[in-house]
Amino acid sequence: MTIVVFPLYEGVTHLDFTGPHQFLSSFPDIKIIVASIGGVDIISHELTFSGLADLEAVERCEVLCVPGGLGCFPAMENAPFLGAIRRLASTADHVTSVCTGSLILAAAGLLKGRRAACHWAFRDLLTAFGAIPDCGRVVRDGNVITGGGITAGIDFALTLLAELRGVDAAQSAQLLLEYAPEPPFQAGLPETAPSHVREAVLARMAASLSDAERRVATIAQRLHNVG
Amino acid sequence: MTIVVFPLYEGVTHLDFTGPHQFLSSFPDIKIIVASIGGVDIISHELTFSGLADLEAVERCEVLCVPGGLGCFPAMENAPFLGAIRRLASTADHVTSVCTGSLILAAAGLLKGRRAACHWAFRDLLTAFGAIPDCGRVVRDGNVITGGGITAGIDFALTLLAELRGVDAAQSAQLLLEYAPEPPFQAGLPETAPSHVREAVLARMAASLSDAERRVATIAQRLHNVG
Repeated sequence: MTIVVFPLYEGVTHLDFTGPHQFLSSFPDIKIIVASIGGVDIISHELTFSGLADLEAVERCEVLCVPGGLGCFPAMENAPFLGAIRRLASTADHVTSVCTGSLILAAAGLLKGRRAACHWAFRDLLTAFGAIPDCGRVVRDGNVITGGGITAGIDFALTLLAELRGVDAAQSAQLLLEYAPEPPFQAGLPETAPSHVREAVLARMAASLSDAERRVATIAQRLHNVG
Repeated sequence: MTIVVFPLYEGVTHLDFTGPHQFLSSFPDIKIIVASIGGVDIISHELTFSGLADLEAVERCEVLCVPGGLGCFPAMENAPFLGAIRRLASTADHVTSVCTGSLILAAAGLLKGRRAACHWAFRDLLTAFGAIPDCGRVVRDGNVITGGGITAGIDFALTLLAELRGVDAAQSAQLLLEYAPEPPFQAGLPETAPSHVREAVLARMAASLSDAERRVATIAQRLHNVG
């Protein structure tokens, strides 16, 4: 039995974990624990996830998978949450994340000198914690496997499954979930999106980005002083 | 404001609706209602969705989007559920589904003579209800837009967004959610999966498939007698 833990927090982006969760859940020998501090319900984009495990009561796992979302910045400032991440990572064979979840791993001091993926708009923030931003969709560095923004969680899940159960098993899940993507547009990356679309998205994210930069600078400074 | 309703039921596959939900939720002028009969919690692959609306109390919507999952077959036999689907479909500009959700639309009598997508393994069952199976990933026939199996819900969402808000808006969501898929394997369709993987998946699904065939035959016969 392989235990996979998804630690949730207020402001998580649900597709970051529901994507991988759905792929992993087709394996009866993978036990998935979805948890939050205190086991409280988590509302993500008005969708309520309940019946969660208490993150601090989870003893160990083979795979720790931290999802992202704009709530990752307050989550980094939450000592019990970050403490649980550090503790579980120390028990895990694979320390993993999707989207800005890698910033949480980095803030926990787990990515020093490691290459990691992240959502394209927030990727450079990894450097504040001594991690090396990588534009790959799924990036592996030692026992750390990180996925890029949100939908990259699905490609990440297949990579993780191949690692945990072999290529045949991963391909079975891919067929079962009919993952043969056909995006009707090619706007998924800043490099391929039309420039007016990219500018509009950046304008919309400007406030979140500058708030994130400010928070990360403070958290990184504090870590530096402690470390 | 555009109202989109996702009707859930016991045995739904969560990624069928969490995928489109995440894409749609980035638009403040789209109101998403996730509902179940009686507003009861829905557990999907051990993930609990709570705080749901009561499906029978939802008055109308612009978009009805029925997700799939193995629970679609009992759901077809649930008169209040199917009644709510029929009633909401009659108010909607767009009647839509992901995965085997199209079988629910078909069982509700909404796809007669219409082309529709479905999960590859269950697609042919559409014919029992007078619908025309289509192997497209996202299929449009009049005001009906249907997506193929599970992960097709994301490609479906972009198609729907382009329809509701225009191509620029759909591309913005694609960039925001970094949807530039890079499947590590090409096993997402029975035609592209290695034959031993396809055979293993079919063997694993055999019991579900024959149960589905039996149920669909009975339901279709009853509809035929009524109609």
